[in-house]
Amino acid sequence: MGVRAVYPGSFDPVTNGHLDLMKRACVIFDEVVVAVLRNPGKEGAFPLSQRVDLLHEATRELPKVRVDAFAGLLVDYASQVGARVIVRGLRAVSDFEYEFQMALMNRRLSAEIETVYLMPAEQYTYLSSRLVREVASLGGCVDGLVPACVAQALKKFDGKGDAP
Amino acid sequence: MGVRAVYPGSFDPVTNGHLDLMKRACVIFDEVVVAVLRNPGKEGAFPLSQRVDLLHEATRELPKVRVDAFAGLLVDYASQVGARVIVRGLRAVSDFEYEFQMALMNRRLSAEIETVYLMPAEQYTYLSSRLVREVASLGGCVDGLVPACVAQALKKFDGKGDAP
Amino acid sequence: MGVRAVYPGSFDPVTNGHLDLMKRACVIFDEVVVAVLRNPGKEGAFPLSQRVDLLHEATRELPKVRVDAFAGLLVDYASQVGARVIVRGLRAVSDFEYEFQMALMNRRLSAEIETVYLMPAEQYTYLSSRLVREVASLGGCVDGLVPACVAQALKKFDGKGDAP
Amino acid sequence: MGVRAVYPGSFDPVTNGHLDLMKRACVIFDEVVVAVLRNPGKEGAFPLSQRVDLLHEATRELPKVRVDAFAGLLVDYASQVGARVIVRGLRAVSDFEYEFQMALMNRRLSAEIETVYLMPAEQYTYLSSRLVREVASLGGCVDGLVPACVAQALKKFDGKGDAP
Amino acid sequence: MGVRAVYPGSFDPVTNGHLDLMKRACVIFDEVVVAVLRNPGKEGAFPLSQRVDLLHEATRELPKVRVDAFAGLLVDYASQVGARVIVRGLRAVSDFEYEFQMALMNRRLSAEIETVYLMPAEQYTYLSSRLVREVASLGGCVDGLVPACVAQALKKFDGKGDAP
Amino acid sequence: MGVRAVYPGSFDPVTNGHLDLMKRACVIFDEVVVAVLRNPGKEGAFPLSQRVDLLHEATRELPKVRVDAFAGLLVDYASQVGARVIVRGLRAVSDFEYEFQMALMNRRLSAEIETVYLMPAEQYTYLSSRLVREVASLGGCVDGLVPACVAQALKKFDGKGDAP
Repeated sequence: MGVRAVYPGSFDPVTNGHLDLMKRACVIFDEVVVAVLRNPGKEGAFPLSQRVDLLHEATRELPKVRVDAFAGLLVDYASQVGARVIVRGLRAVSDFEYEFQMALMNRRLSAEIETVYLMPAEQYTYLSSRLVREVASLGGCVDGLVPACVAQALKKFDGKGDAP
Repeated sequence: MGVRAVYPGSFDPVTNGHLDLMKRACVIFDEVVVAVLRNPGKEGAFPLSQRVDLLHEATRELPKVRVDAFAGLLVDYASQVGARVIVRGLRAVSDFEYEFQMALMNRRLSAEIETVYLMPAEQYTYLSSRLVREVASLGGCVDGLVPACVAQALKKFDGKGDAP
Repeated sequence: MGVRAVYPGSFDPVTNGHLDLMKRACVIFDEVVVAVLRNPGKEGAFPLSQRVDLLHEATRELPKVRVDAFAGLLVDYASQVGARVIVRGLRAVSDFEYEFQMALMNRRLSAEIETVYLMPAEQYTYLSSRLVREVASLGGCVDGLVPACVAQALKKFDGKGDAP
Repeated sequence: MGVRAVYPGSFDPVTNGHLDLMKRACVIFDEVVVAVLRNPGKEGAFPLSQRVDLLHEATRELPKVRVDAFAGLLVDYASQVGARVIVRGLRAVSDFEYEFQMALMNRRLSAEIETVYLMPAEQYTYLSSRLVREVASLGGCVDGLVPACVAQALKKFDGKGDAP
Repeated sequence: MGVRAVYPGSFDPVTNGHLDLMKRACVIFDEVVVAVLRNPGKEGAFPLSQRVDLLHEATRELPKVRVDAFAGLLVDYASQVGARVIVRGLRAVSDFEYEFQMALMNRRLSAEIETVYLMPAEQYTYLSSRLVREVASLGGCVDGLVPACVAQALKKFDGKGDAP
Repeated sequence: MGVRAVYPGSFDPVTNGHLDLMKRACVIFDEVVVAVLRNPGKEGAFPLSQRVDLLHEATRELPKVRVDAFAGLLVDYASQVGARVIVRGLRAVSDFEYEFQMALMNRRLSAEIETVYLMPAEQYTYLSSRLVREVASLGGCVDGLVPACVAQALKKFDGKGDAP
């Protein structure tokens, strides 16, 4: 009967920064639903099913985490799964402005759902899925930045599906 | 013989944040030319003619406002319509940096024309045409965020013309 | 056996922005300890005891809130009261940088305690205790910005104790 | 019967950045009241009367400018002098956040008065009264940064009145 | 036996802001390798070979500058050419965040290579290759913003290769 | 006959973040003069002589570093010691704006001297002398944040000299 939180994102692919945030969220909330956004107009670098699979594998040791995918409005999805909290990570000033805009819009769409922000460990401040894909596609080493299963997947990744 | 101002933008579509800014500009200036940018390389989500039509309908009660479309350099257009002021809204730090860059370039292109910034009402801080289109295309309610005619138009809008 | 959170601050005096944040925290956490910092080197505009009294009065309708004062390190205080979460509000980019610095230092001092950020309602974005004191001392109306008991206290406040 | 604007500040002392902004305001508005804030709790580096005198001398060639001093709420002063516009300069992101806060508070205190922002010439972006005082007190050359009368006054200035 | 620095970028096309930065770098370092990024997935507005040619012509008077192109990871390229310093320009807050992210990733990929930041002259603060292309394609004058050879090239440029 | 750089600051007291920056500067420059600002109007938390002593002890293993104190304009001091480069650290957006202002003023005061910025290791991003003093005065552990000699000095430090 505790608090369930949704942690939404593209997770394209999941990084150690995402995992760090999930672990922090698990300290505070009773269940954390990691929800991959299914964006009909935009394929992503990795297919949705693979992103979900990699998340399942990477979060195997986190019993409070449940992985799911969703389409439509985030606040509607949160209501459906019985979550009253949205969790987001804040790394930089530019994150902050975008997050502020989204939080206020979501609050308008559903006053019952609150957005909370957590800060990742400082060694993940500079990490993003896009930067990881870019470094990997140029042959750079991403060990320590992503879970082992993602490092494996990135080796087969040719950058073809990547948005410019 | 008062001061004429140009309020340029994409207005794709016009929101209540834009209208709030126009009303504020009307308190200060004698005429406000709302000028829709005709961008040859980029269609926009709504066709230019519809964006102009929606602006006409939304500004019917604002006698000082004139709606127009333009192509080419903004400072050239401002000179043509006899305006010595460009009006812009400032909502966020990221707006500020982009606006600063544009104002300095426009000042270099034409020293006679001054850019002034107004702040929208705080309830519109998070509003943008893009966010409105996104929410509407996912079935979210945009009442109170856009004029009635735009809410109507968004119902028929399928997001097809939308840039990713 | 739920999650207890500490909401620390100067509350000099408490504003409706602070109260808005407390209400949001009460939706997420089981108990919210509002903790007034006792700063030995800095008296504040209102004496500590009055700040605590005003908080008591202002939070009478919030059963999950407990008001307290503390000195020393925040993470030590949080441990003492059995809280594993620190709650803070984020209003602006400058807040963000300061909060980031404090969160990382607190995490270093105690890895068990997590800081979470909430966003106040947009109408309180511009509110601060200092601005409220300043407006009140110049005879401006602060109704709607502070609870009634604080508005009353500000009438007797002459700004003497105020830092420049 | 045109638009009168108030340009408030400490002007401690007036710099060429302030004068640049006044000239830009004179292009847009019919009268610009440069209003020096009389702050009872804070003396300033230069006495108020000298700040006003230096402004008189520096704006002698600007017929639309009137110099004045005021105490109390800025919006009350603006009403008294029949101004419906407050003019402010924006140089940096940190300016922006402070100005945003003040504009929203002033709008709440008086909905009739609008704040507009202008950008100084880029060579004055880094200028502030405080930096000018600091450089002058260390023997640095401030020619080109301040009007001649201020350069003269700064030579006799020993920094004694300066806040730390 | 001095310090060699790499100044990487797209230079699409080189502007006077880039040249200003190169001159500053030449004061500090013994050799400055201007390295044009060959991005396989993105053509750029000007073809790579033309960007390199324009750089050659524009830097003819800078004996310490060598022009080159590279693909792959920047830190690998820097190692290959024997550079232990990467030089970058900082103009704005948004630059800062992106640069911070890149510097930390590059430091992780190669701890031996240090990134240093220089500030361009203030009159180039608002300059970017993209803005220059945009202004030129709309018929605006770019004299003083780019070297003569680039101004010439922009006259034949129709914006076709330009990313939206 | 290499490049000499000045790294100016209050160093009140020196932290491991400062030392990290010095080590990075030593990779690039032939000599690094660490210059403690002697501010006549402001005593500082630690006396100037102690701050210099702590720097001497902390930089014993850095042969390229020389410790000094200076008063007056930084650019004059840099000229006197034959340095054409000023080194500064950048940690946050607010640093950036202040540093930008100082760099442009210093460039105006002396066009021959260039300011370069380095980024500290990410684990020192949140570190400042002030935060270290504050944590130490509240009994928090500062091991790993400052050199051993500073940790020792902080134990005897009562915060009395500290600005509020």
